[in-house]
Amino acid sequence: MSLVTNIYPADRVTLREVGLRDGLQLAKAIPSTEAKIEWLCRECAAGVRHFEIGSFLPAARFPQFADIDAMIDASERLGVHSAGLTLNERGAETAIKTAIRELVCVVSATEEHSQANMRRSRQSAVDLVSKVVALRNAEAPDKVVNVGIAMALGCSISGDVHPEEVIRLADACLNAGADIVGIADTVGYAGPKAVGDICARMTKLCGNSPFIIHLHDTRGMGVANAAAALDNGARVIDASLGGLGGCPFAPGATGNVVFEDVVFMAESMGFVTGIDLDKLKSARTIAEEAMPEEEFHGALHRAGPPKNATWRAN
Amino acid sequence: MSLVTNIYPADRVTLREVGLRDGLQLAKAIPSTEAKIEWLCRECAAGVRHFEIGSFLPAARFPQFADIDAMIDASERLGVHSAGLTLNERGAETAIKTAIRELVCVVSATEEHSQANMRRSRQSAVDLVSKVVALRNAEAPDKVVNVGIAMALGCSISGDVHPEEVIRLADACLNAGADIVGIADTVGYAGPKAVGDICARMTKLCGNSPFIIHLHDTRGMGVANAAAALDNGARVIDASLGGLGGCPFAPGATGNVVFEDVVFMAESMGFVTGIDLDKLKSARTIAEEAMPEEEFHGALHRAGPPKNATWRAN
Repeated sequence: MSLVTNIYPADRVTLREVGLRDGLQLAKAIPSTEAKIEWLCRECAAGVRHFEIGSFLPAARFPQFADIDAMIDASERLGVHSAGLTLNERGAETAIKTAIRELVCVVSATEEHSQANMRRSRQSAVDLVSKVVALRNAEAPDKVVNVGIAMALGCSISGDVHPEEVIRLADACLNAGADIVGIADTVGYAGPKAVGDICARMTKLCGNSPFIIHLHDTRGMGVANAAAALDNGARVIDASLGGLGGCPFAPGATGNVVFEDVVFMAESMGFVTGIDLDKLKSARTIAEEAMPEEEFHGALHRAGPPKNATWRAN
Repeated sequence: MSLVTNIYPADRVTLREVGLRDGLQLAKAIPSTEAKIEWLCRECAAGVRHFEIGSFLPAARFPQFADIDAMIDASERLGVHSAGLTLNERGAETAIKTAIRELVCVVSATEEHSQANMRRSRQSAVDLVSKVVALRNAEAPDKVVNVGIAMALGCSISGDVHPEEVIRLADACLNAGADIVGIADTVGYAGPKAVGDICARMTKLCGNSPFIIHLHDTRGMGVANAAAALDNGARVIDASLGGLGGCPFAPGATGNVVFEDVVFMAESMGFVTGIDLDKLKSARTIAEEAMPEEEFHGALHRAGPPKNATWRAN
């Protein structure tokens, strides 16, 4: 079994909690490090094992991620899989020296978004992936290199994105040495057919290796898109507790697809997530207390599970 | 082409607006007749052609439906397809004499809910369908008899519901002369797999004849369930503007699946709905003004369509 199939096994559905990274990207008030660690602990207690815990970005511009070292330490104490965003060489060099287990690079699906978001071309972003992989191979061979393809299902700058182009970029990232690629509906443009189609293509491209689908609930399609993804071979889904998160390219948008609702949906489809919905409530409480200005979403949280829900965490 | 395939053609997706019935069932404040008619007009202008406009229930207990005659008149002036709930013989006798185009009967999927909701057994409810059909045949052969199977995807009183049992009841209703059967997830228990399964069974049962899927968004699965329904042959979906509606058996629940989000989802899947999302906003405005205490939902309404949305009403 390869490094990445060990971390993201094919026989279950893995939900990556991205609330501590994507969910804090545009947060009005930054939760304290203590609150973030408590949030991590409580989600771990509920069975969550995969977290994006921050970004390796300049703390002056992104103070919400200034405590990433403390988050890495906390992740290691809990023994959970930690991932951090690295958007440039310096970020990757810093990340490599830490105990973080996964580096997340970004390649945009469109040239326009690539320039706007990273001030580099898509090819230059793929070249950066090669550099990060070389660094990883030399210095920290047990770390995962994950590449997220942003705007892969529609771009708020240039509109339509052809799935062939996304697959070409995903293939380029895998050829550059990435262990896993994520398909991101960054601005929540997609419906379930488009998500199902791209996941079927990714399943074909990746074979027995996993890929990630990263969903936003901007237009209420998040859960439907997650279901379509599962129907078409995806087994790793990014979501955030309470649907936290925004996007600088999608003003007014809701955040990631709601973690709790995706757990319920996946379990209702017969997929084992290992996550206890009751215990997730306790994690949500700490996040809500730490971020009183944020709007938390989620129908399952509001309504509770149905009377006939017999599955529980295992 | 039979009566019912003429009204619900197989080559497009029909969204039935149930907000004026299901959406008002538990409304805190009752909108005026004028507001309800304006709401109807504006949705008609947006391309909506199928409405549940009220119930034939005692006006003393259900004052929100006391103006059903005015709603029928308005529907006839607009030339839209109108449906009204008839839960007993008296209601059916009243309805038959009006210009309403569709009578909606209810059969519960479970004995327990049947007794709690209608104070009769399921068999007695099926017998009532036979009586309504006989009345229709004798007095108003151009009216549609629709039977909704309540709690078909899980019951808040008795829990699990076996799909075989639902299909048996649906078959019994069709044998009793019903033109169309609706499968109702009354309390929003189902995930997309269960909805897909029951729709596949209904597609097999109904052949070229349509059936209805009636969805609530109680646990955030509404849009995912609608997508699974379309994937498995359903072509008629009940939804309500802004996700209005509650259920006396599901306290605190959100209402029906959001009409606007289902339009977006269906169009994104390549299904033609004939509905203009921009124009729906104007209908929503009148409903919001008429019911200021109600919570209106809908991600599409909040975020607007994506930049790459090229479809429009046709």
